[in-house]
Amino acid sequence: MKAVETSFSVRYAETDQMGIVYHANYYVWFEVGRTEFFKSIDLPYWEIEKQGLYLPVLESFCKYRHSARFGDTVIVKTRVKDVRPTRLKLTYEVFRKQDGVLLAEGYTEHTFINKDGKPLNIKKSHPRVWEVLEKLTVTKFSSTP
Amino acid sequence: MKAVETSFSVRYAETDQMGIVYHANYYVWFEVGRTEFFKSIDLPYWEIEKQGLYLPVLESFCKYRHSARFGDTVIVKTRVKDVRPTRLKLTYEVFRKQDGVLLAEGYTEHTFINKDGKPLNIKKSHPRVWEVLEKLTVTKFSSTP
Amino acid sequence: MKAVETSFSVRYAETDQMGIVYHANYYVWFEVGRTEFFKSIDLPYWEIEKQGLYLPVLESFCKYRHSARFGDTVIVKTRVKDVRPTRLKLTYEVFRKQDGVLLAEGYTEHTFINKDGKPLNIKKSHPRVWEVLEKLTVTKFSSTP
Amino acid sequence: MKAVETSFSVRYAETDQMGIVYHANYYVWFEVGRTEFFKSIDLPYWEIEKQGLYLPVLESFCKYRHSARFGDTVIVKTRVKDVRPTRLKLTYEVFRKQDGVLLAEGYTEHTFINKDGKPLNIKKSHPRVWEVLEKLTVTKFSSTP
Repeated sequence: MKAVETSFSVRYAETDQMGIVYHANYYVWFEVGRTEFFKSIDLPYWEIEKQGLYLPVLESFCKYRHSARFGDTVIVKTRVKDVRPTRLKLTYEVFRKQDGVLLAEGYTEHTFINKDGKPLNIKKSHPRVWEVLEKLTVTKFSSTP
Repeated sequence: MKAVETSFSVRYAETDQMGIVYHANYYVWFEVGRTEFFKSIDLPYWEIEKQGLYLPVLESFCKYRHSARFGDTVIVKTRVKDVRPTRLKLTYEVFRKQDGVLLAEGYTEHTFINKDGKPLNIKKSHPRVWEVLEKLTVTKFSSTP
Repeated sequence: MKAVETSFSVRYAETDQMGIVYHANYYVWFEVGRTEFFKSIDLPYWEIEKQGLYLPVLESFCKYRHSARFGDTVIVKTRVKDVRPTRLKLTYEVFRKQDGVLLAEGYTEHTFINKDGKPLNIKKSHPRVWEVLEKLTVTKFSSTP
Repeated sequence: MKAVETSFSVRYAETDQMGIVYHANYYVWFEVGRTEFFKSIDLPYWEIEKQGLYLPVLESFCKYRHSARFGDTVIVKTRVKDVRPTRLKLTYEVFRKQDGVLLAEGYTEHTFINKDGKPLNIKKSHPRVWEVLEKLTVTKFSSTP
């Protein structure tokens, strides 16, 4: 699948006293990438929640290669790694715009629940969402090594 | 009214590249003080919300006197400044524990709403909460210049 | 002075359990506006710091009129309110892009210090920065009611 | 090695509109655990940095088992997993205090650098720090299955 890209400037608030972006903020950037990903497939995350579908995080991981700094613009590339009726795994790469250097990469794995926290099989509970996500896998994954 | 005190260590995440605590984080510390204040009057904020009462912020203000740094322990002193059936104003002072220096002071003003965002007159909608808050004003404000 | 505008989407991380943007995050948004303001006058804040000039916050204030929510795009309009050799005051307005509603407004007041925290008179220490900021006041304030 | 424990209350700021603690904040909690860990071995992190030693994060991981909520008090248990002259790996467990339920667990891996970002072999550059950390491994790891 083609990556969905989003780009923004580092915020001063995101730095720490080491003079670099505080490591936990990369997960917020992953979320910005994730939000853009859902928008790009016409399933804005705020619409998904209105349909009673929530995607809490089961696991998150990040490998930090180079530090992002205030003054940098970053690009987040988001890809679907795996979709199942009860789980979704997305991967992220964070690049520094000025020179294209890969700063960090990681993933988040999500489960599907309803408002009361009950696990959902979205193939049954939200067939349209499932259809869109499954299509991504079938038509686009196949052509990606 | 006697101030309600709470104390905690500065987090690395709260610093910025100036080497000091990022200014917006003082409002989070005010919130920690506020949470402790509500606990101290036996109205934990999570219980208040369960009763369908929410206290969004109408105004917030902070005056920064000295910088807090990683390694500091701070004390937040919270006081009620004004209570009305439709509003609540709290003031905060942030001290550095090791030497008692006042680092910052400010206030938040809150309104009362229900889950749907409708403004409430808590004297009518939540008489017990009103009673507790009003009592603070009457018996404790009177003795404070 | 004409306002400097910047626009971005609300992040999920910025919401709280009331379902709206947590109030302290508006100060981060003010900072995003401030960063854009400095860029617009060819004094990117990261360049200013490289010249040994820092602008810690002396005071911050925000009045909240309507809640921002996840799914909203906001516009921050930043203006210089007052510039002196030892102080700078900026004002901010946050609008919801879809309908132009004013969500919040406030200000930050800054002092000028060097790396060691010593107060600076930038007219003497950083004449070029002073010149740019002063020019804003003279040529642009005059035409604004 | 015995775990170092630290305990604190969930902050309202840490919640998101799903009504639970936003996932990235667990990494901030890991940092609170890490800070307490360094204090417990008489190497407060702010002292380490004063000696020109910094510990940026190379990798971070978290597995979320149950949601933390506002109103919860959490306990973070921090342990050393591995120490080498150029790396340090710590593991964390987050428990809900009221019932002892494990909410999340994860790790951070750190490298050692100096102020200019140059990698350090702390056995050579900071022998006292190395001695303390190595001793933890030798005397305490051995007795732990």
